[in-house]
Amino acid sequence: MTFDVTVYITWKEGVLDPQGAAVTESLHKLGYDGVEGVSISKMMKVRLQAEKDNVEQQVVEMCEKLLANPVIEDYTYEIEEVIPS
Amino acid sequence: MTFDVTVYITWKEGVLDPQGAAVTESLHKLGYDGVEGVSISKMMKVRLQAEKDNVEQQVVEMCEKLLANPVIEDYTYEIEEVIPS
Repeated sequence: MTFDVTVYITWKEGVLDPQGAAVTESLHKLGYDGVEGVSISKMMKVRLQAEKDNVEQQVVEMCEKLLANPVIEDYTYEIEEVIPS
Repeated sequence: MTFDVTVYITWKEGVLDPQGAAVTESLHKLGYDGVEGVSISKMMKVRLQAEKDNVEQQVVEMCEKLLANPVIEDYTYEIEEVIPS
């Protein structure tokens, strides 16, 4: 079975996000003074062939081993089965 | 008024995503042979002070001017009002 998995990788609370700080500053320079802050995170779309009773375990493993850095990042995911058309 | 804006920056159809290709390869090396492809995009959370009738226009401008590269990237956004507690 085929699945579309969306993984969201966000900074843990309190971790500095230098890219977000830079974008905030750039937006202020462009005149967008109403911007209070920007946080930039990653979104990964993974197309995966797996068995239904195994897919979530694989996704968690992939996040823990490679996709996220669990020291500084949190992850959440959505798993959606791809229905063949 | 305060708004939480989420901007999703994705690659346009057909644009090469080298980071996604590298992650796909790494997942294969780790034994996840079921992975058919990975696409990596950005998600930005912007906290914004703005007037209600003006916020969407500001968001579109910020995307066009800075947050996205309209040559190779598409963007979508969600605007949510922050209710003071």
